[in-house]
Amino acid sequence: MTVPRPSPSVLPVRILGTGRALPSRVVPTAEVAALCDPSGGLTAEAAEARTGVRERRWLSGTETALTLGAQAALNALSAANVELQEIDVLLNASGSQAQPIPDGGALLARELGLSGRAAYSLHGTCLSFLLALQHASLLIASGQAARVLIVSTEGGSVGLNLTQPESALLIGDGAAAVLLGPAVRSGQGLHAARIETYPEGAEHTRIRAGGSLLNARSPGIQDQDYLFDMQGLGILKLASRVVPAFLERLRPGLSTGLPGISRVIPHQASKVGLDLLRRYNWPEDRVEVTLPTLGNVIAASLPLTLHQALTAGRAGEGDTVLMVGTGAGLTAGGLILEF
Amino acid sequence: MTVPRPSPSVLPVRILGTGRALPSRVVPTAEVAALCDPSGGLTAEAAEARTGVRERRWLSGTETALTLGAQAALNALSAANVELQEIDVLLNASGSQAQPIPDGGALLARELGLSGRAAYSLHGTCLSFLLALQHASLLIASGQAARVLIVSTEGGSVGLNLTQPESALLIGDGAAAVLLGPAVRSGQGLHAARIETYPEGAEHTRIRAGGSLLNARSPGIQDQDYLFDMQGLGILKLASRVVPAFLERLRPGLSTGLPGISRVIPHQASKVGLDLLRRYNWPEDRVEVTLPTLGNVIAASLPLTLHQALTAGRAGEGDTVLMVGTGAGLTAGGLILEF
Repeated sequence: MTVPRPSPSVLPVRILGTGRALPSRVVPTAEVAALCDPSGGLTAEAAEARTGVRERRWLSGTETALTLGAQAALNALSAANVELQEIDVLLNASGSQAQPIPDGGALLARELGLSGRAAYSLHGTCLSFLLALQHASLLIASGQAARVLIVSTEGGSVGLNLTQPESALLIGDGAAAVLLGPAVRSGQGLHAARIETYPEGAEHTRIRAGGSLLNARSPGIQDQDYLFDMQGLGILKLASRVVPAFLERLRPGLSTGLPGISRVIPHQASKVGLDLLRRYNWPEDRVEVTLPTLGNVIAASLPLTLHQALTAGRAGEGDTVLMVGTGAGLTAGGLILEF
Repeated sequence: MTVPRPSPSVLPVRILGTGRALPSRVVPTAEVAALCDPSGGLTAEAAEARTGVRERRWLSGTETALTLGAQAALNALSAANVELQEIDVLLNASGSQAQPIPDGGALLARELGLSGRAAYSLHGTCLSFLLALQHASLLIASGQAARVLIVSTEGGSVGLNLTQPESALLIGDGAAAVLLGPAVRSGQGLHAARIETYPEGAEHTRIRAGGSLLNARSPGIQDQDYLFDMQGLGILKLASRVVPAFLERLRPGLSTGLPGISRVIPHQASKVGLDLLRRYNWPEDRVEVTLPTLGNVIAASLPLTLHQALTAGRAGEGDTVLMVGTGAGLTAGGLILEF
């Protein structure tokens, strides 16, 4: 049975504003290394060389993923000169959840004081922002919404596994928000979006407990089961195998260069993950990086890195940006956006 | 600042097949009443009169939310005579999560043996299925996908709060799946979809612990904090206030009748929730009900009830169905689909 698949055309949207909010507490790598290995066997230098992370932010005091998310949202609205009440849809696109019920969209709406608007979540761990940006573009292109605010906010530091430096050294907290609206000129918008999930990698990145499969009522449950568990080598092997063909399906030529792309915003998974991009012959000076100062901020890494590129003037009007990464799943995702 | 909002037109999609999978264990209301009140003070008759639930299913043995979800998916594919490999996108639309990481989409893909396809989640607690159906329609209408499989699967019985009969008596487990594809005739498809979130009701329905706000590392955390907590009266008051105007925005006339609607598929929140529908002058014989035998199956209630209407011949080709409900948030949601 064959069904004709119409060629997806450009979804006419544009970014109206971006914003971010970071925890006040800066945690140097030396501090995390000491938490992971109190004997002092893991030096800050070795830890930084391994992960590429010099410092990251962790929530402290009264800060929560929700207060940060709301602040990032207000900053994006302010940058766009748009009032909160002008939003049609609020999308939560976070890898970590603040609370299981109600949904993070409703919790962010409460924090913002936004009532009567659609508020819900797109979820695909580290790639949640890409899913939300595609969904927002579909809503706007179809006329179902005029202004969609996407918020990615992470409080992953509460679930760090300090017995596993490989992951504990990577994760930082933070939030970013992006306001999307209709395009104002031809060609502006979402040119391509693609997600591919390879669940043979489902065991490589996981938090096992905290859902219906394994929880406080399960016999033999251990504190460890609630913590983040990552097998970097397994991820790397699977990603090396599937990403080149994935990139070619996103846009032909992407696995050996940057056809028509002015700037790359990669997910900041890890130093090894960023190093992998060299294999595709993407010039290093066209790749935006936030890993050294923010770490891997789960789903907020992509919009935080986009925000940095825009505010630093390394991407802007008329540019075409590739946002791309892999996340738990294993999932590869990418989109091409003309500004 | 005023932006013109184009009128949303019909998104040309159709349901290719539906399927369900239920746990084998049937739990009569007498059994749950005895668990909630071992003294025997809560009779099965009183419990059933209050909730409208005669029996529900609970997971047992080797059954999990994932095994049920995969079975429902295969049943929907079989009903549509479509092979698993013909799916472009797999959407997890469940209120409860099987495991925090990776995403439920990847976990369902693994259970099904589906690799290399998009697999992710739309989340808005009990209304997740409506969000996924709208998203799938946008993907199909825009040409980004030809076949989208939506799976709602719930294992909520593991988080029941037996000290709160009001909610413990309601929740059942189960799964349903719906396969969506392009329309084959004019008018067929999604005519309207609307979500409104009123976070002033965020405290009425919640699971407080299990995210970054409150978790195993929080001082003073109690087992109770991980359990479902529902304040029925608060939900009812807020819903009574906001739903009529919501319905009018979904389609004018809906708060006082069923203009152009042949069948109503409501979320099966509770007896009180279903009774509320009488206020809108919707004839009882046009409202599909699964509450007495399945309970409230969270996000799976809507597709389970849709599946029942279709397989019983109470909805079919040419009919226009209203799917509607409220969920935690408080969120009101609805969509109008011409079959």
